[in-house]
Amino acid sequence: MKEIEVIRIKEDVQLNDPVFIVGLPGVGHVGKLVAEHLVEELDAEKILEIYSHHFPPQVLVDENSETHLVKNEMYVCRTEKHDILALIGDHQSSSTEGHYKLCALYLDIAQEYGVERIYTLGGFPTGQLTFSDEVLGAVNNTVLTEELKEYGVIFKENEPGGGIVGASGLLLGLSKLRNIDAACLMGLTSGYLVDPKSAQALLKVISKIFDIDIDVGPLEERAKEMEKIVARLKEVEQQQQGSMHDTNTAKDDDLRYIG
Amino acid sequence: MKEIEVIRIKEDVQLNDPVFIVGLPGVGHVGKLVAEHLVEELDAEKILEIYSHHFPPQVLVDENSETHLVKNEMYVCRTEKHDILALIGDHQSSSTEGHYKLCALYLDIAQEYGVERIYTLGGFPTGQLTFSDEVLGAVNNTVLTEELKEYGVIFKENEPGGGIVGASGLLLGLSKLRNIDAACLMGLTSGYLVDPKSAQALLKVISKIFDIDIDVGPLEERAKEMEKIVARLKEVEQQQQGSMHDTNTAKDDDLRYIG
Amino acid sequence: MKEIEVIRIKEDVQLNDPVFIVGLPGVGHVGKLVAEHLVEELDAEKILEIYSHHFPPQVLVDENSETHLVKNEMYVCRTEKHDILALIGDHQSSSTEGHYKLCALYLDIAQEYGVERIYTLGGFPTGQLTFSDEVLGAVNNTVLTEELKEYGVIFKENEPGGGIVGASGLLLGLSKLRNIDAACLMGLTSGYLVDPKSAQALLKVISKIFDIDIDVGPLEERAKEMEKIVARLKEVEQQQQGSMHDTNTAKDDDLRYIG
Amino acid sequence: MKEIEVIRIKEDVQLNDPVFIVGLPGVGHVGKLVAEHLVEELDAEKILEIYSHHFPPQVLVDENSETHLVKNEMYVCRTEKHDILALIGDHQSSSTEGHYKLCALYLDIAQEYGVERIYTLGGFPTGQLTFSDEVLGAVNNTVLTEELKEYGVIFKENEPGGGIVGASGLLLGLSKLRNIDAACLMGLTSGYLVDPKSAQALLKVISKIFDIDIDVGPLEERAKEMEKIVARLKEVEQQQQGSMHDTNTAKDDDLRYIG
Repeated sequence: MKEIEVIRIKEDVQLNDPVFIVGLPGVGHVGKLVAEHLVEELDAEKILEIYSHHFPPQVLVDENSETHLVKNEMYVCRTEKHDILALIGDHQSSSTEGHYKLCALYLDIAQEYGVERIYTLGGFPTGQLTFSDEVLGAVNNTVLTEELKEYGVIFKENEPGGGIVGASGLLLGLSKLRNIDAACLMGLTSGYLVDPKSAQALLKVISKIFDIDIDVGPLEERAKEMEKIVARLKEVEQQQQGSMHDTNTAKDDDLRYIG
Repeated sequence: MKEIEVIRIKEDVQLNDPVFIVGLPGVGHVGKLVAEHLVEELDAEKILEIYSHHFPPQVLVDENSETHLVKNEMYVCRTEKHDILALIGDHQSSSTEGHYKLCALYLDIAQEYGVERIYTLGGFPTGQLTFSDEVLGAVNNTVLTEELKEYGVIFKENEPGGGIVGASGLLLGLSKLRNIDAACLMGLTSGYLVDPKSAQALLKVISKIFDIDIDVGPLEERAKEMEKIVARLKEVEQQQQGSMHDTNTAKDDDLRYIG
Repeated sequence: MKEIEVIRIKEDVQLNDPVFIVGLPGVGHVGKLVAEHLVEELDAEKILEIYSHHFPPQVLVDENSETHLVKNEMYVCRTEKHDILALIGDHQSSSTEGHYKLCALYLDIAQEYGVERIYTLGGFPTGQLTFSDEVLGAVNNTVLTEELKEYGVIFKENEPGGGIVGASGLLLGLSKLRNIDAACLMGLTSGYLVDPKSAQALLKVISKIFDIDIDVGPLEERAKEMEKIVARLKEVEQQQQGSMHDTNTAKDDDLRYIG
Repeated sequence: MKEIEVIRIKEDVQLNDPVFIVGLPGVGHVGKLVAEHLVEELDAEKILEIYSHHFPPQVLVDENSETHLVKNEMYVCRTEKHDILALIGDHQSSSTEGHYKLCALYLDIAQEYGVERIYTLGGFPTGQLTFSDEVLGAVNNTVLTEELKEYGVIFKENEPGGGIVGASGLLLGLSKLRNIDAACLMGLTSGYLVDPKSAQALLKVISKIFDIDIDVGPLEERAKEMEKIVARLKEVEQQQQGSMHDTNTAKDDDLRYIG
């Protein structure tokens, strides 16, 4: 195996006005949930798999006790307006160098298919358990801002304050150097839990961008389960506020253990 | 020395219907104990040594105060049904990249000897000090499941839930890409202690697979020593449960310190 | 993208008796504040950008929600006595190897422009919240010491005791091997906070070295804001000294969390 | 600069029956103290310097505020019986890979000078503040054991139990592969403090091996200073044993903070 190994499943794929969508694991797994949901609901076709020394040395085990080497995958989803080239995966790179090399490869492939627009999907951690359906945007070219506002994306000065770390951010930076317009769309989420509700909010924005109708049923179910957990967490939080009213740090830390 | 250095001890080795068995250090050292026991009891012959930049920069010191550079080794054990190519070693890779490179090399060598089946041996951490003689399996091809069930291996949906990390898992993932059938066999073990008792349980399964008779005497002795330690640990645990009945986390942590 | 990518913005730049000034993020961000202030106040011209696998995989987000890939930049500032080649940046290397490779590149570029003198700017952590306007120096050639003392730089035996870590130090070490004289100028600073006041003190030394007049207005404003924070911190510290008079370690740690 | 850069200070050096002695920083800095003392007392001549990406990106600052890039150095000390090729340095490699590459280089150079015997010097951590003048040995070839016992070196089965980590151990492992006899000589030391007293004990063994007379004056002075510190530590320890008689772990940890 080479440092990065691309296994083509489907050759000679032609894409119509393609847009590249990236949903890898990250804050609240919001981006991953949305991209995987798109792939499922739009009957996407897998075109390639990516294996790499930069992913953890690990296999995942499925319901048949069958193992699967950690990988990233690209799918094609056909929609009226655009064909979507979707990147999903089990993990992001575990090394700094790998992040750069993998993102450069993703862009090489995207360009090979003629991609001229990229959306990376992620979560923006608020530290609050209160739900918000806001979707925050950041762009590598301000020419995108007005268009995205029309789809309901909000923009805030210097936010996220700590920048955007990992593939979601790096792809914007690297695609700028290649003159490809790209935006990062982030569902607001606590940062402590996998967040299918935030994923639903982000999915609504995506549906508007691509002018498609997506069944959010499966995400809705998972969201309801999570709501119960959140409700219980809030209870715990309030009890703690009663007994530990002057120890904010301890309270925050407790929540973090659940994440 | 190159990044990975293979030193051949024995050239022109021919193997009869060989199976590759891997027992490197890991959870409870179950896999390592079993593979080393096989090598000893079956009068195995060492055929090569592997040194690498990816192992810790360390020597081990033996009973004669003689030092030995950290290494992995391959042995050949002859049995009626199959010749066994066994990989044992002092350490696994200390880097992600090294895990991939070393496992790729192990497979190169296994293929060179005509291996068409691989068993990687390990431990599955239960977090409980209660003994279980169960052996859990995961496969890179479900065609193996029925056969292994006959030997007493059990399979559980999505278990291990966190996947299988390190050479035991990675070899299944990488051999899948080479169309070699492989299974990971895991003895259930607390995860806190070296576990010769779990190794005995796993050895029984191996004996059935290869239709061989293995003296478990040496493992039995070490198992008895460990049982005494476990008994004492349980006592401590019960005392703690008495005095610290509502602090489960603390209790778990204490046990972890002994591991 | 290569491991390190240099993007030239301006070709055929000729420099008059150039001096290389380096102000990257570090202790109290003193060096970064000073170098960025120079670049701004002297209407510097950007001549190149440096991107690298060795920087964190991250973009920063500006006031227009536009992302910028983490980078280092070189500017040219024209002064009567010397042209200044200034290196500023968002981050230093995240890897040991990257530190060496990037510093070697910085020196290659500096030599290309004919640089024969280097000043690296930084902060020297005192662990005290008391302000000091001292600027400590270290040199890679003692021939520089007398000259720098005239500009108000002080020198202390074996200080900093722990050596100088990162680009500020490494550039002195590496330029010595190339026979380029270099000094590291460090503003004294607590080590807990971004310190524009220490930056002002260091800027005064720089102004004398280059015989230039620099408006410190913008730094002054930021310094005043920080003074308020420091005043509040000292209050907290005194309260803690009252209630926790024998737990010095805890007190130090608390301060560290604010940094 | 290359990954590893060797700068030859002295060409065409001929060595008479040379022995390679290695004293790099490590447990109690025992090896480093002894090797540096030898270099000083035997009026050694520096023959080369080694710089590397694998050392920390750092300069040290001397009494004249002059900076020195972190490096390793080789010296030649002439004695009646043997010429000594001595390796000393500021740091060991900060990466696993670097440890292997640097040690391979050290051996290349040693072989170039015709070295057929290696002594690596280090400390063996006892965890006790009680002084012992024992010197523990480990060898890469048991043929050395009897000879070393005559010089007062003691050998204990399987000690050090955790193996020997870093250059001191790795050089024994790697030189074995080149058929060069090597021993690691370890002064017993607490492991918490720089230990010039243990260095004196080790130096006595070295003096016997090379049949030389070394003035231990400078080490004696440093040893006396350390004895005072140790005495104070023991006092603290006894007080703690009074007040915290059943918390051994806490006591050990406290000591560790002083190291």
